[in-house]
Amino acid sequence: MCKALNSVIKCKAAVLWGTNQPFSIEDIEVAPPKAKEVRVKILATGICGTDDHVIKGTMVSKFPVIVGHEAVGIVESVGEEVTTVRPGDKVIPLFLPQCRECNPCRNPEGNLCIRSDLTGRGVLADGTTRFTCKDKPVQHFMNTSTFTEYTVLDESSVAKIDAEAPPEKACLIGCGFSTGYGAAVKTAKVSPGSTCAVFGLGGVGLSVVMGCKAAGASRIIGIDINKDKFQKALDVGATECINPRDFTKPISEVLSDMTGNTVQYTFEVIGRLETMVDALSSCHMNYGTSVVVGAPPSAKMLSYDPMLLFTGRTWKGCVFGGWKSRDDVPKLVTEFLEKKFDLGQLITHTLPFHNISEGFELLYSGQRYVWRLLTLSHGLLLDFGICKYTHFF
Amino acid sequence: MCKALNSVIKCKAAVLWGTNQPFSIEDIEVAPPKAKEVRVKILATGICGTDDHVIKGTMVSKFPVIVGHEAVGIVESVGEEVTTVRPGDKVIPLFLPQCRECNPCRNPEGNLCIRSDLTGRGVLADGTTRFTCKDKPVQHFMNTSTFTEYTVLDESSVAKIDAEAPPEKACLIGCGFSTGYGAAVKTAKVSPGSTCAVFGLGGVGLSVVMGCKAAGASRIIGIDINKDKFQKALDVGATECINPRDFTKPISEVLSDMTGNTVQYTFEVIGRLETMVDALSSCHMNYGTSVVVGAPPSAKMLSYDPMLLFTGRTWKGCVFGGWKSRDDVPKLVTEFLEKKFDLGQLITHTLPFHNISEGFELLYSGQRYVWRLLTLSHGLLLDFGICKYTHFF
Repeated sequence: MCKALNSVIKCKAAVLWGTNQPFSIEDIEVAPPKAKEVRVKILATGICGTDDHVIKGTMVSKFPVIVGHEAVGIVESVGEEVTTVRPGDKVIPLFLPQCRECNPCRNPEGNLCIRSDLTGRGVLADGTTRFTCKDKPVQHFMNTSTFTEYTVLDESSVAKIDAEAPPEKACLIGCGFSTGYGAAVKTAKVSPGSTCAVFGLGGVGLSVVMGCKAAGASRIIGIDINKDKFQKALDVGATECINPRDFTKPISEVLSDMTGNTVQYTFEVIGRLETMVDALSSCHMNYGTSVVVGAPPSAKMLSYDPMLLFTGRTWKGCVFGGWKSRDDVPKLVTEFLEKKFDLGQLITHTLPFHNISEGFELLYSGQRYVWRLLTLSHGLLLDFGICKYTHFF
Repeated sequence: MCKALNSVIKCKAAVLWGTNQPFSIEDIEVAPPKAKEVRVKILATGICGTDDHVIKGTMVSKFPVIVGHEAVGIVESVGEEVTTVRPGDKVIPLFLPQCRECNPCRNPEGNLCIRSDLTGRGVLADGTTRFTCKDKPVQHFMNTSTFTEYTVLDESSVAKIDAEAPPEKACLIGCGFSTGYGAAVKTAKVSPGSTCAVFGLGGVGLSVVMGCKAAGASRIIGIDINKDKFQKALDVGATECINPRDFTKPISEVLSDMTGNTVQYTFEVIGRLETMVDALSSCHMNYGTSVVVGAPPSAKMLSYDPMLLFTGRTWKGCVFGGWKSRDDVPKLVTEFLEKKFDLGQLITHTLPFHNISEGFELLYSGQRYVWRLLTLSHGLLLDFGICKYTHFF
């Protein structure tokens, strides 16, 4: 691989050439950043279900494409007019940009920036791509594309973070950890001393548990039909775990009996319509709040008794935990460095970058925690990792 | 009518002897208050749809019963152990009690006191009734029973208010006004400068509009299929009104076009499943909040696309606007006396108490505003009014 400042960089990337095809580790060219763009050397990245949706074709994308969206990198060079980062800065790419100009960005409660590419545009803001492989343009993915040694990002999709942050842990803040943690502390605003119930104990569910704990909840009940997940949930902060299949009563009644009808916050972190209603029913009829964290199946209608809401409940959704990405990601990294939460607990595997397909096999096998990929490095001082965990997008 | 302190009081009341029967103005006996009870002389009261549900049999009750639940009165006498009011205090009976001891009362976000009688118990806390008519016990209604010159209430269902409050206006704070106003200022917490949309412009809908205005909303869009309601809505604070039947597009698109997609708060004040989903869809996909104020039809399922919630919306319900009744009703009366809102705008008719059946005829005819009934008074210094307005309970 060769590299020259503000010239084309040749490097390795995991390219997808079509749906249901394996990743292909290819030599690619990464063009220099244009105005308001940033070229970033990726240090560590995670695998997420959303990446897999592109492989499976359930998320629209043109091909070839470089997916991956949960990473830490170092700014290699910047285009003209870039003011918020400079070469050498440690950064997290943001699949949810923050342009600070659009309608949702300007609203104090908003975070779904209109620059978000959740519909498969596959290009940067100027409508073009910076990746080339075998003389063919390669698509970007959600303003990030992190399964590559170098990527180019719009400045609105780059958050500068503390230089001390360990990439292979901090990368989780780029998506899954923040999604779950924010659902608890930012979206639900879990109150100290409260009782919480978390439906689904994958990586995002564990991050919800960590958020409930950080917010000072006194009881955090983990719920999953897979008991193998209980020990990890207890390790990260759950005070008890239950399997709905161990009971004949509806889970809402089980939780009410367990707690004297005091469950104030519930979180659905699976993405199933039935458990969304279960979670709503399980929070207190009058002062309860339920947050939908798991992505619902597309184009499916949910049916429920609106009296559940009428008595006073609150039902919320959130994207990326409700965080404003450029504002909040650096703060979350700082909180991590201050040991407010331990991302290391979410990591169970480490794999080299060229073993990315093995990483996805582990995803499919249901080993829904986190691991790290270390790159072959090609003689670079490059610590390139991939972290995997359960994610329901 | 005769009256003696702490003895049985004989007075007039509007008694219901069975479903679908007219009110009968009867001579009744009202027993003295027992421990932790308060006997109240009613000065003014409103008619509400919930009262009518008993007539129609859609709300369970034993008969005979004295309904009515939105009133102002004067404490005539108190039982033992009563510490929060004394004879001569001006009070509002509370259909939603606040015992300050139960699970919802102790939660800062809760208000649905477990002493609430929303299921037709028809008796005071000790399990008995204080009303007798023709030697038969007469049932209480929702801890209030205000269609009578005297009633007996549990202390937890009595809020002492400012002695200067005019009964025929302040009575609206006992139910309908607070329900709508609280949905805006307490439950949705409408933010200054925001854009709001109110679906349904009956009496509670108008109270929502007044709440949005008091909270500092810069645009308040009233929505109704009856254009006759628009002028009153504009009078109380709506900045514009629209009729969905004037458009071919879905109302959510109409509102988005009108506002540049900035509707932050919507309120459903009708009680229809379709408009509940319309209201949810009409608030901003990311930072919008929609409040269900209209009571949904019982045992009907609502079907919607949960993606509406997932992108960040908040969907809430509330009872009595989310207010903690004994704490907040006196404050609302004070705010009314400080002219923060004008209850007089909600009153369109005044009728004498013995014309109560005429009041209900007006309710059925769709004249969905407020009026006042003045009693015959029987030589008493008694200004006994009934106020009527749209209410969706």
